[in-house]
Amino acid sequence: MPTNSSSPKSPRTILPDPRQSPRFAGISTFCRYPRTADVDDAHRPIDWLLYGVPFDSGVTYRPGARFAPRAIRDASQYVKPYHMTHSVGVVEKLSIADAGDAPVQPYALKETLDSVAAWARQQSTSHGGSGTPSRLLAVGGDHSIAYANIKATHAAQSQPLALVHFDAHLDTVDKVWGESWGHASPFRRAIDETLIDPKAMVSIGVRGPLNTPTDLEFARDHGVTILTREEIATNTGRSALSKKIREIGTRPAYLTFDIDAIDPAFAPGTGTPSVGGLSSTEALELLRSLKGLDIAGADVVEVLPDRDPAGITALLAAHIVFEILALDAARR
Amino acid sequence: MPTNSSSPKSPRTILPDPRQSPRFAGISTFCRYPRTADVDDAHRPIDWLLYGVPFDSGVTYRPGARFAPRAIRDASQYVKPYHMTHSVGVVEKLSIADAGDAPVQPYALKETLDSVAAWARQQSTSHGGSGTPSRLLAVGGDHSIAYANIKATHAAQSQPLALVHFDAHLDTVDKVWGESWGHASPFRRAIDETLIDPKAMVSIGVRGPLNTPTDLEFARDHGVTILTREEIATNTGRSALSKKIREIGTRPAYLTFDIDAIDPAFAPGTGTPSVGGLSSTEALELLRSLKGLDIAGADVVEVLPDRDPAGITALLAAHIVFEILALDAARR
Amino acid sequence: MPTNSSSPKSPRTILPDPRQSPRFAGISTFCRYPRTADVDDAHRPIDWLLYGVPFDSGVTYRPGARFAPRAIRDASQYVKPYHMTHSVGVVEKLSIADAGDAPVQPYALKETLDSVAAWARQQSTSHGGSGTPSRLLAVGGDHSIAYANIKATHAAQSQPLALVHFDAHLDTVDKVWGESWGHASPFRRAIDETLIDPKAMVSIGVRGPLNTPTDLEFARDHGVTILTREEIATNTGRSALSKKIREIGTRPAYLTFDIDAIDPAFAPGTGTPSVGGLSSTEALELLRSLKGLDIAGADVVEVLPDRDPAGITALLAAHIVFEILALDAARR
Amino acid sequence: MPTNSSSPKSPRTILPDPRQSPRFAGISTFCRYPRTADVDDAHRPIDWLLYGVPFDSGVTYRPGARFAPRAIRDASQYVKPYHMTHSVGVVEKLSIADAGDAPVQPYALKETLDSVAAWARQQSTSHGGSGTPSRLLAVGGDHSIAYANIKATHAAQSQPLALVHFDAHLDTVDKVWGESWGHASPFRRAIDETLIDPKAMVSIGVRGPLNTPTDLEFARDHGVTILTREEIATNTGRSALSKKIREIGTRPAYLTFDIDAIDPAFAPGTGTPSVGGLSSTEALELLRSLKGLDIAGADVVEVLPDRDPAGITALLAAHIVFEILALDAARR
Amino acid sequence: MPTNSSSPKSPRTILPDPRQSPRFAGISTFCRYPRTADVDDAHRPIDWLLYGVPFDSGVTYRPGARFAPRAIRDASQYVKPYHMTHSVGVVEKLSIADAGDAPVQPYALKETLDSVAAWARQQSTSHGGSGTPSRLLAVGGDHSIAYANIKATHAAQSQPLALVHFDAHLDTVDKVWGESWGHASPFRRAIDETLIDPKAMVSIGVRGPLNTPTDLEFARDHGVTILTREEIATNTGRSALSKKIREIGTRPAYLTFDIDAIDPAFAPGTGTPSVGGLSSTEALELLRSLKGLDIAGADVVEVLPDRDPAGITALLAAHIVFEILALDAARR
Amino acid sequence: MPTNSSSPKSPRTILPDPRQSPRFAGISTFCRYPRTADVDDAHRPIDWLLYGVPFDSGVTYRPGARFAPRAIRDASQYVKPYHMTHSVGVVEKLSIADAGDAPVQPYALKETLDSVAAWARQQSTSHGGSGTPSRLLAVGGDHSIAYANIKATHAAQSQPLALVHFDAHLDTVDKVWGESWGHASPFRRAIDETLIDPKAMVSIGVRGPLNTPTDLEFARDHGVTILTREEIATNTGRSALSKKIREIGTRPAYLTFDIDAIDPAFAPGTGTPSVGGLSSTEALELLRSLKGLDIAGADVVEVLPDRDPAGITALLAAHIVFEILALDAARR
Repeated sequence: MPTNSSSPKSPRTILPDPRQSPRFAGISTFCRYPRTADVDDAHRPIDWLLYGVPFDSGVTYRPGARFAPRAIRDASQYVKPYHMTHSVGVVEKLSIADAGDAPVQPYALKETLDSVAAWARQQSTSHGGSGTPSRLLAVGGDHSIAYANIKATHAAQSQPLALVHFDAHLDTVDKVWGESWGHASPFRRAIDETLIDPKAMVSIGVRGPLNTPTDLEFARDHGVTILTREEIATNTGRSALSKKIREIGTRPAYLTFDIDAIDPAFAPGTGTPSVGGLSSTEALELLRSLKGLDIAGADVVEVLPDRDPAGITALLAAHIVFEILALDAARR
Repeated sequence: MPTNSSSPKSPRTILPDPRQSPRFAGISTFCRYPRTADVDDAHRPIDWLLYGVPFDSGVTYRPGARFAPRAIRDASQYVKPYHMTHSVGVVEKLSIADAGDAPVQPYALKETLDSVAAWARQQSTSHGGSGTPSRLLAVGGDHSIAYANIKATHAAQSQPLALVHFDAHLDTVDKVWGESWGHASPFRRAIDETLIDPKAMVSIGVRGPLNTPTDLEFARDHGVTILTREEIATNTGRSALSKKIREIGTRPAYLTFDIDAIDPAFAPGTGTPSVGGLSSTEALELLRSLKGLDIAGADVVEVLPDRDPAGITALLAAHIVFEILALDAARR
Repeated sequence: MPTNSSSPKSPRTILPDPRQSPRFAGISTFCRYPRTADVDDAHRPIDWLLYGVPFDSGVTYRPGARFAPRAIRDASQYVKPYHMTHSVGVVEKLSIADAGDAPVQPYALKETLDSVAAWARQQSTSHGGSGTPSRLLAVGGDHSIAYANIKATHAAQSQPLALVHFDAHLDTVDKVWGESWGHASPFRRAIDETLIDPKAMVSIGVRGPLNTPTDLEFARDHGVTILTREEIATNTGRSALSKKIREIGTRPAYLTFDIDAIDPAFAPGTGTPSVGGLSSTEALELLRSLKGLDIAGADVVEVLPDRDPAGITALLAAHIVFEILALDAARR
Repeated sequence: MPTNSSSPKSPRTILPDPRQSPRFAGISTFCRYPRTADVDDAHRPIDWLLYGVPFDSGVTYRPGARFAPRAIRDASQYVKPYHMTHSVGVVEKLSIADAGDAPVQPYALKETLDSVAAWARQQSTSHGGSGTPSRLLAVGGDHSIAYANIKATHAAQSQPLALVHFDAHLDTVDKVWGESWGHASPFRRAIDETLIDPKAMVSIGVRGPLNTPTDLEFARDHGVTILTREEIATNTGRSALSKKIREIGTRPAYLTFDIDAIDPAFAPGTGTPSVGGLSSTEALELLRSLKGLDIAGADVVEVLPDRDPAGITALLAAHIVFEILALDAARR
Repeated sequence: MPTNSSSPKSPRTILPDPRQSPRFAGISTFCRYPRTADVDDAHRPIDWLLYGVPFDSGVTYRPGARFAPRAIRDASQYVKPYHMTHSVGVVEKLSIADAGDAPVQPYALKETLDSVAAWARQQSTSHGGSGTPSRLLAVGGDHSIAYANIKATHAAQSQPLALVHFDAHLDTVDKVWGESWGHASPFRRAIDETLIDPKAMVSIGVRGPLNTPTDLEFARDHGVTILTREEIATNTGRSALSKKIREIGTRPAYLTFDIDAIDPAFAPGTGTPSVGGLSSTEALELLRSLKGLDIAGADVVEVLPDRDPAGITALLAAHIVFEILALDAARR
Repeated sequence: MPTNSSSPKSPRTILPDPRQSPRFAGISTFCRYPRTADVDDAHRPIDWLLYGVPFDSGVTYRPGARFAPRAIRDASQYVKPYHMTHSVGVVEKLSIADAGDAPVQPYALKETLDSVAAWARQQSTSHGGSGTPSRLLAVGGDHSIAYANIKATHAAQSQPLALVHFDAHLDTVDKVWGESWGHASPFRRAIDETLIDPKAMVSIGVRGPLNTPTDLEFARDHGVTILTREEIATNTGRSALSKKIREIGTRPAYLTFDIDAIDPAFAPGTGTPSVGGLSSTEALELLRSLKGLDIAGADVVEVLPDRDPAGITALLAAHIVFEILALDAARR
């Protein structure tokens, strides 16, 4: 059972007092952070905007991730603000808010991605400081929405983003059933549009049967570093990741986390689960090892509540959101 | 599959436009009604305040109803505003808002009931018109919280309330394990304090094994009309209810709905389910037959999400909330 | 929420005091009745022995009913002793005990049925009065076990038993896959051995697709009264049942209740669910209409906990056990 | 427990012998009917082709019905061939086969509807007799696919079809989010294209909150008979249905069954469940009352396996398929 | 599939013969150990008493652990008596019994803790030998009940107990919502009352977000050894634990195991799950590494059956109970 | 999200084109391999026949594995053909087909094993090449069916088979409840009949409480190599396995995989789960380390869908099937 002591003084983000409103009470926002409309001037500009993208029209297999923002908001109520490993109080360092859900249109894939990108960009500008728009953390939704948040994040940068990518799959397919914008293709499109630099992209946790060995070709041809699930379990793989992180250095990096990077035991609630994945402990260690990166934007995607009977997938996703914020808090 | 046409013009309550924000999107409030803080002056005073009471410290058997306000908010997103049977647009007639959750203290039963009552009374006064405080609809939580909302509702009245009570159980026990304020006792206490008039109280759906026949005595001795589940299925029982409704007439009435009035097939997610209950169709018919009553306050209680694997209990509870509001809209 | 007042004075069965041991506490026995070993002389002879038969080797489709005795014991903790409709205190009138589970051998169908019958007969004699063995209520297990309990019940009688049979299926098949003793055949065998009198047998709730119309022939040829689910919903069917009950009169009757008589909405946890069945309310009414019959033995079978995610099937089964006991208490 | 006797002799459809292959064994086809490729000449032409449409890109709320054909095939294994109420052996009268699943493209709504219609039409022609194409029963998928099967069915007819429509919703919306072909619109489109005759259309079970009263206007303006859930429960409503059935007479009729016509207790696994619906018993009675209609085509749609933890929704859907076939068998 | 050979000869604890009563049969006691009332003189004094504490009024988040004793009794039926790693037959060495559930009062936290302590102490004295009361293993219930069992265990000792503590949380909070006795505080109270010696206390598996860094202060200030989840995964952490175990030496030690020490993948059924926890393999290894400690008392707490859909949490808890008993058997 | 590119050219096995039939469409066969009846001459002889054995009459605890072939077929639809670690296209190298389910008789254990063996042998001969019968991979069902597939596999060999055995249990018990052919005994019988050579048998993952230490004696006395779960986690254990694999060399080996070798977190859906098992990652590594063995036959058993709420056990089993096939493809 967890401690429940009082909140810290004068933080950058004001949380509801659990002495007044227990963690099972109240209208759910991500980690109990305030809605953007409820942030006063003293806590502005807002450093991070969290928002949901209740959208799963990009899937090729099992749909339902449109209900993930709600499930993750509910599961995140027990996320407290102090990170023990990084020794940092996330709400001390960062002003964070829940911007609600982006506008979506289930029948319109590309149009939705564009409107999400535009809306997010606008939110980022409105709630950020002059010259420093709020950083954007999107909670999917299927992986297609990564394109939208990458686009909105990139808009605030002067160069292509580095990409740290957790996933069982590469998501660099050109088209599926003639569609270029589905959840198999976000990084193909982001590379096409030079929103990200494939040479500064690393994919962690790739595994499972492929259609053909050519599935890996596009990524390898463009210089993407692929650390399969087998490789990342070894010291060699960990070293390769460290090296990549050092190469990225202070360049703005985008972090995209597909929950299927993690084994179905820890994350059953996802649309294309892949056996033999990361444990939650491995995933947290890997995330913490990214300390020092300048996370310019991020997403957590592919949670499917209808296949998550004990709620452990949404709980894990909520903590991954927190780990990402903690990386930025620890860097500052 | 339901219609999704545009919302009505100039309603008393503004709903998000489903064309912009589909019903699976956004931070969940009850039936997508606005939070109190988001209601502008043009839509004030607020006629009905809905609020959650995430509290289950009053239970004698299976706990967990503290998670019901969240589950019912999520399940209510598909509740639309026009009531076909009453031919009334609920948001046309009524200004409704979600006031969030009342303050609770899991370790303090009576203190919580008092603080909920005080908070609700204060909300009611703040958001209501002069002389016409907002009506209060509490979403439990266990049935103990009915006392609190009755107390807050009664404060705006000059006489004891009539009580229309749906339940498998009478809830008029004096004490359980020495405790006077648990979920077996709310109406005992409300009668003790003359918040309600037992002669204007009717309990519908009572059934199941008792400890002893004396369990019914207090209610019968005080003139409560008990319509057992067997009786209410008959024309005689329906007539007795109609007669009672006519007797109550224009007197302010409080409606309390324990979801266990309904059969476990329709409402599995509750703490003390009782077999052989009302069907959902019967429950809706009974609620609609109350048309004409002046519902001064209400609650919907005892939903237990952890025993509701397909979410049908929360969905039904959300619609009961809507039926209650529609009764008031239809009366006006 | 239910009343929890004190237990009645000097009953024939001693229940644990819920003031000391709440209904969620303690090692589970059926309805909190004492184990046979715990019944003192003052409460002997024992009128009814309840026992489990954790056995499902008779099934033709989905197994798992071997776990039903445990699930029903757990679900029965909330069954209180006073029956409101019959106005009778079951523990006032009857000394009841839980005899534990009968010995079973999963790999040996007929041998198990014989050993269950012998064991039950021996229990009945040991715990009953001189000349009045305890009556036996078996909680299955699959329907094959009815044969065993009928055999043990019949041993105390001088004539074939009448049979009141609730079921979606007739269970009078001669053989399935060459096996004569499976759950499709108990009444075929009981008729073969003149343990029951087919002319005093009534099957209630029969429905669903058949292999061929000849499936009904054996029963009809032997004079079994079949009241299909469609018939029993009508006044004609109800009258036919009443007539049959009057014909049976004071003859010792055996009551067998296959939970699949009831619709899957109310009883999802069963091995061969059949849509369009009785509601729980209908089932309770039908059971209560049997008042006056001399129930010499009974069983409740075919509950399958692994398909009962909210526990409502086991709960219903527990109440059917109680209704059967109440029939006997009300008769005395 | 059900009977398991031998299959009838020389039927029009050959079923696997349950004595060799129990009902839990084998690759699942609908009701164990043969695949089209396995039907020999002696059993051709095929009267009814059953096929799946694993498609849910038409939904406006919860997706997942693409997995329904598989779930319904599995749940249908226990459906036997003789219908007790109609006294007809379905496989005696009809040659039936499972044609597999139609080709679908998740990202292309209208294109998929067209390709399903074309494929179904082609199947119907190939496997039917000269001048008498096979009748088509589509198992969805969401309700958008009704348009496709209606189109394929209509192609074999010389006049618009009559339509018997079970649903909680009217599905005559023009557009949702600009899309004309989603699951809210199939009958709007079918009326637009005069595939069905609205004056010969009856919608049964309509209920629940609407956006505005205008939601009903299109249907009423075009002469659709709407029998709400409240109306159909009354003798008046039943008479109105009978009258409508008589009016349709021998005109070819299409039957479309949205599982949400039924109450969530009986059919929790659906995307837009609506409380207060038909019971399974009522639904079977209504279906059986259609006896005499010439069912030229049909569909059963909107089953969502991920919200169906005990499998009762898929089981009910499988039996509705059987009831539809039995209507045609009984007519011949 | 497991071996099922005959039980060992002349053990200290008599188990039911699985040849007569399969492991799925019979009234469930912990691991099929006898009830205290069923232990004959030849098997007395009883070395270990297992008892349930069906109590969750100490929780700060999700309640329901009151149903854990029942779930763990059911899940423990497959626990056999011989421990392969320690090469010890637990029932050969130890007389063990199930004492049933302690008396609890849901509305009275401190009173219940006191009555549990008194009852357990009395049981321990009654069933133990002269001067050697039975050791007590409590199965919660929430973690608040650890205080009660520690108090009862301490009463048989002349010095404060050492404490080996598995948990994601420290549980040394002073008060939550003004309450001193909830599940966040048992070790704070036990230290206050010198029932345990904080310098001989080690907490294993601590992890997750905190409210503030001060959450750890009380424990650290009092000399508690904290081995976070990260630390215990390393050789350094393992060495620190070994060192602590050696320091404790022969001093009587109490072992408290909060199931949330383990990752939600392995133990989803708990009230405040914390991602990134121990695997079950790690937990078993850590428990086995305690060999040599004199375990004077123990508890296993915080199992929540309603969030344990496949029963794996209760199964794991049952095996942890067995591992604790095996530690004592292996030491003797 | 996974890649979905086109299938390879001229493979030995033809898969449905996912561009026409998405992976959620169509009648399910194992991994979308064709039914035997659908394999044309160009793809014959068939190298591997996969078949189901829907049989669980051999269990000693929880039944239900009879539904596993169906669940695994459904869960296998997402298994693609190229193995990244072995760099081999399984369908390039091997002609594979789904032979459907073997004939079973639930009431006849030994008879079913014999008829399965005879049927499988006959399938193997019919679909194989001259002198090279098809290899057989059986999908259980409970572990008793391993005997049948071993017998059928052995029939094509001139010597006893080596056996690589993944399991929490040894399954070498002589009899349980007098039965010699249950799921505790398949390898005892196979050794008795010299179908396998115990000196070339290795059991991996054995763990958990035993009845007595003698449970291990038969295996050890016959020279079986037992690598407990603890041992296999160490380098010593891995070396012992490598040595054993080298000893087996080119001798025909049978691989039997009881899913309970794996921890309940990864494989909750099984009949006798045992805590502290292999992770899925460990299991995949161990399987891949067998590369070079001549796998002459195999089975994957003991999956129990009713205890697998998120489907992750069936998914893992499907991938184990694929890993076995990949071992053979990689060897060629």
